[in-house]
Amino acid sequence: MSSSTDSKINILKRPTSFAWIEQAIANLDTILLDHSHCERKAAGVAINLMFRYPSYSKLIRQLTAIAKEELEHFEQVNQWLEKRGIALAPLNSPPYGAKLKAQIRHQEPDRLLDSLLISALIEARSHERLGLLGEYCPEPELAKFYRSLMASEARHYGIYWVLANNYCAHREVVDRRLEELAVIESDILSTLHPEPRIHS
Amino acid sequence: MSSSTDSKINILKRPTSFAWIEQAIANLDTILLDHSHCERKAAGVAINLMFRYPSYSKLIRQLTAIAKEELEHFEQVNQWLEKRGIALAPLNSPPYGAKLKAQIRHQEPDRLLDSLLISALIEARSHERLGLLGEYCPEPELAKFYRSLMASEARHYGIYWVLANNYCAHREVVDRRLEELAVIESDILSTLHPEPRIHS
Repeated sequence: MSSSTDSKINILKRPTSFAWIEQAIANLDTILLDHSHCERKAAGVAINLMFRYPSYSKLIRQLTAIAKEELEHFEQVNQWLEKRGIALAPLNSPPYGAKLKAQIRHQEPDRLLDSLLISALIEARSHERLGLLGEYCPEPELAKFYRSLMASEARHYGIYWVLANNYCAHREVVDRRLEELAVIESDILSTLHPEPRIHS
Repeated sequence: MSSSTDSKINILKRPTSFAWIEQAIANLDTILLDHSHCERKAAGVAINLMFRYPSYSKLIRQLTAIAKEELEHFEQVNQWLEKRGIALAPLNSPPYGAKLKAQIRHQEPDRLLDSLLISALIEARSHERLGLLGEYCPEPELAKFYRSLMASEARHYGIYWVLANNYCAHREVVDRRLEELAVIESDILSTLHPEPRIHS
């Protein structure tokens, strides 16, 4: 068993199907373009949270670091796109992000708790899927690039989880909500989205 | 004449009044807190433009770099706040940003042109005002910090202006619109906003 599967984050309720891996490997260019959008969106989500909670100094400090790192990954993915002659272009999002966002409750502090835990889950799933790309991608250099990003995704998962515990509720409340959302997250991915995406 | 006033950006129609300098110097803590918000907002504006024009590779590349740099400045300003024991907190915005934003026309390519030129003008004004703080701030270390940020603001001004010329229109159209917006920008600042802000 490779290091990428050893280091998986246990919160994910169901592992990614092999159907996703086959779809991704058969559409590496589209996956790379979608990955670019994912990194930009991840930076955007972190900055939006910073706008929403301007007094939360620990959140601000940690999310500033995450946003910077996502922008660096965005640059790196875009360099891969350029190297492969793939033009930047819009791409329909799979339902994943919107369906997760729909789970966010409207009242505080639930809103912050759900926002942080959903970001944590997305980072956990990204960690798993970049790991799978790092393992199965037939192009060694690209595979290596995917593996190089995995550690950050795992770290970001941890930061979002720690922030949830810091700001939101008793540990048991956080754990229970994370369990609920993790079930929903795996359910969303149980049907493979027909268009190849990082979160199809 | 100091280097900060020598290097001023000529597009600004009227220089900042001495009344603003007095207001700022008398309220350094509030100015620092507002500056933190300004840096975060500047990163947000760059990222929003990246979301709106996902295929514009030159814009994406340049604004990613700007967003990263604004986040670094945001971190640096927040370190200054921490050092002075000033808690992060929301702060009412002065009318400056909203009044400039109201000038953005809704049809493309005018919308992009106006967005870029308004960002250029805000960077130009920030360059001027950070320069004034660098010159008049009575605390040498803080004054030095303000001077250290000036070069970036001037560079960002240049990037926004180059992008406007790259994507939007003939040089004369860009110049004419920049002139119009620069007049409006100086008009907005002609009455000192009663609350001390970077753009009061």
